[in-house]
Amino acid sequence: MSDFQLHSQLQKDCFVLGKFELCQVLLMNDSQFPWFILVPQRKDIREIYELTDAEQIMLIRESSYLAKKLAEIFNADKLNVAAIGNIVPQLHLHHVVRYENDKAWATPVWGKFAAVPYTEQQRIVLLDRLKSLDLL
Amino acid sequence: MSDFQLHSQLQKDCFVLGKFELCQVLLMNDSQFPWFILVPQRKDIREIYELTDAEQIMLIRESSYLAKKLAEIFNADKLNVAAIGNIVPQLHLHHVVRYENDKAWATPVWGKFAAVPYTEQQRIVLLDRLKSLDLL
Repeated sequence: MSDFQLHSQLQKDCFVLGKFELCQVLLMNDSQFPWFILVPQRKDIREIYELTDAEQIMLIRESSYLAKKLAEIFNADKLNVAAIGNIVPQLHLHHVVRYENDKAWATPVWGKFAAVPYTEQQRIVLLDRLKSLDLL
Repeated sequence: MSDFQLHSQLQKDCFVLGKFELCQVLLMNDSQFPWFILVPQRKDIREIYELTDAEQIMLIRESSYLAKKLAEIFNADKLNVAAIGNIVPQLHLHHVVRYENDKAWATPVWGKFAAVPYTEQQRIVLLDRLKSLDLL
């Protein structure tokens, strides 16, 4: 874990919000969708099945905790949870809050629209809404 | 579990290959990608976090078992694992085998191409390759 380093593309595209026991919690810098990413702090892992059994259990526990909280905070119509990683090889798990009237509905959001970064003000408001995540 | 019924859209789009302890294992009838779907046999569940803790652990165990087997059987470049469910509300977890030269690479496959059904002969060959999944 001490060897873990967040992939440069994730550093570029996201804000680091904090961490859970296993994962770093990122906010995708795209104001079009409330979009969060969990990254297990383990080196050289590309697929979920490459984690140990214990780490996989931590991952689904942290993912479900996050997804449920996001559904409540954002009053979501649906959560989209996905490990894709065709471009960024470091294992990362997307959690995208979806609404039936969002601009990509009902298709997935990946690779669809260029990101629209948050303004400073939008980010402050958003971070305040996320306090109940109780991140480390 | 006795009340569980596979969603009509999944019945229409997929072949049922068998089951694990928690999930039914489906093959998407699209010969363009080796594409499998796990459906927890639980009624009225839309999000992973709605499963019990024990069921969530079963789900990630079955998902990882399937993903690892598929990676080996198909010599995959990447697995894409996702719970989307914007259209079909019944919780189902996609497992798509990806190659760096497949027709959708590097974007996700969902909502991209109309399915190209397997021929009878292709399906027979494929089912033979899947024997090592040891489905119930």
